[in-house]
Amino acid sequence: MPNLQPFKTITRYFVSPASHHTYNFLQYEYRPNLSLITYTSRRTKKKKNYRPIFGKAIHNSATQSTNMVTTNASKDEAVKPKVTLFWLNQSRAQRIVWLLEELGLDYDLEIYRRVDKLAPANAKEIHPLGKFPVVKVNDDLLAESGFITEYLVDNYGEWLKPKDRASLMRYKYFLHYAEGSFMPPLIVGVVMQGVRSAPVPFFLKPFVNMICSGVETKFLLPNYKTHFDFLESEISERPWLAGEEFTGADILLSFPLTAMKGKSIFTQENYPRLWAYTEKLTEREAYKKAAKKTETMEGEKIF
Amino acid sequence: MPNLQPFKTITRYFVSPASHHTYNFLQYEYRPNLSLITYTSRRTKKKKNYRPIFGKAIHNSATQSTNMVTTNASKDEAVKPKVTLFWLNQSRAQRIVWLLEELGLDYDLEIYRRVDKLAPANAKEIHPLGKFPVVKVNDDLLAESGFITEYLVDNYGEWLKPKDRASLMRYKYFLHYAEGSFMPPLIVGVVMQGVRSAPVPFFLKPFVNMICSGVETKFLLPNYKTHFDFLESEISERPWLAGEEFTGADILLSFPLTAMKGKSIFTQENYPRLWAYTEKLTEREAYKKAAKKTETMEGEKIF
Repeated sequence: MPNLQPFKTITRYFVSPASHHTYNFLQYEYRPNLSLITYTSRRTKKKKNYRPIFGKAIHNSATQSTNMVTTNASKDEAVKPKVTLFWLNQSRAQRIVWLLEELGLDYDLEIYRRVDKLAPANAKEIHPLGKFPVVKVNDDLLAESGFITEYLVDNYGEWLKPKDRASLMRYKYFLHYAEGSFMPPLIVGVVMQGVRSAPVPFFLKPFVNMICSGVETKFLLPNYKTHFDFLESEISERPWLAGEEFTGADILLSFPLTAMKGKSIFTQENYPRLWAYTEKLTEREAYKKAAKKTETMEGEKIF
Repeated sequence: MPNLQPFKTITRYFVSPASHHTYNFLQYEYRPNLSLITYTSRRTKKKKNYRPIFGKAIHNSATQSTNMVTTNASKDEAVKPKVTLFWLNQSRAQRIVWLLEELGLDYDLEIYRRVDKLAPANAKEIHPLGKFPVVKVNDDLLAESGFITEYLVDNYGEWLKPKDRASLMRYKYFLHYAEGSFMPPLIVGVVMQGVRSAPVPFFLKPFVNMICSGVETKFLLPNYKTHFDFLESEISERPWLAGEEFTGADILLSFPLTAMKGKSIFTQENYPRLWAYTEKLTEREAYKKAAKKTETMEGEKIF
């Protein structure tokens, strides 16, 4: 084995298939032409592979092709990737379950649950941000919902990507829009809900409500209106978000839409077409399958 | 001219090269094989082209290739695209000026200015969200900073995109991370600043401060710490964000970094390597050129 070195020379890897075993590696071998690391677990004595995405790039070799589709895995691996979804209840991870069902991929679910409404502290062992979803595909560890969707569709579900140029442009736009523009005001909304429900002396409660209402009136409602007007109009022009065909962008936008459905200004009366579209999303077989799977797991309806 | 129809059959276009002239179109012609619309302005009687990205997809023809790089424009157009950047002061648009300078592209700046700290209402004539930056490249109208960066780099700046697989994966990840994960807590911070500075009776001021401090302690600071720890660690592993080479991802992340530099927890003492990296960004020739250009325009130092 060339390049065999004791583990201590790797100072730190954020992301490994089993990052809580970081200090149990016995030895590792790096194959620059494959950007692949083979390590031997001190505990199990077994050899495993992974590709470092985050963390130290030991050799920044330019030997890899940039084409993700063809270089991601051998043909056999591409057909049957080993997928693990790191999942948190009531989180953006739910839609990745749905995406994986649409793709017809086998996957393991590694379950995490909220503690005091937040992701548990040990989530940072998987990814340094401690956020969900995180997906491991073979030896790639992926974060950011937009990037996860892009990667999975590019590699395992070309049919969830538009063929015509205008739709493809919209698809790519909405992959960024979902988290980059639509979610931030919703996050502000959740923070303000937290402020509203925080314990304060009763005589101050009206004042807390006044502050929260101020943020809602001046920031949240105008933002919600802008986004829902935009989406209502977009979805009035074509059957799915990007065009004639259902795509990964529809899955990505499903989370904020279902989260807002019936709350605040997103009513059937205000946005009839977006409402109908959101209902249409939940009628897909893969959606129902994903919902059933996670409901059984959680023991309650979560979709 | 085949397919010549009066304008009224186009019910609505969010995005056109001159959307304030929407109702001045005399006639239009749609060429499905090019996804291109030619319209004649009622005012100027001149013919113009554009490709609808948002708004109505008249025919969803699957005749276009999905390869953005080769189909976006003819070779001549690719070399000399017509670029307009719709720019708002003190906004994310600043980094696109920088990106355009890095790419060495000629571009027009269409200037918008904040009214009461917000984007002006007529911004929605350019893009239905009324946000900046928006970029028009030939006949494509683009929004979402991550998508704009991806598009411009794919089409006009391959050298700002990594060649090796691991760096390419990081590059794509960070294109989503910048707006999808890093910006949202900063937006919450800006909203809470707004709450702090809103006029209230003096005897309630301490209470406003208490609420804002609560959000800062419970939500903002832990989030800032997570992100800055992550970025400090990432940038300690390699000279640039994605790898050995400067890429579009560095430009994209520059906005939140320069905005936070010296404020809150992002100090030289807390994050020495990220601090040095942020300073290194501002030393690039194209950055200085972009800064000088917008400073001259605004009459004040804005970078």
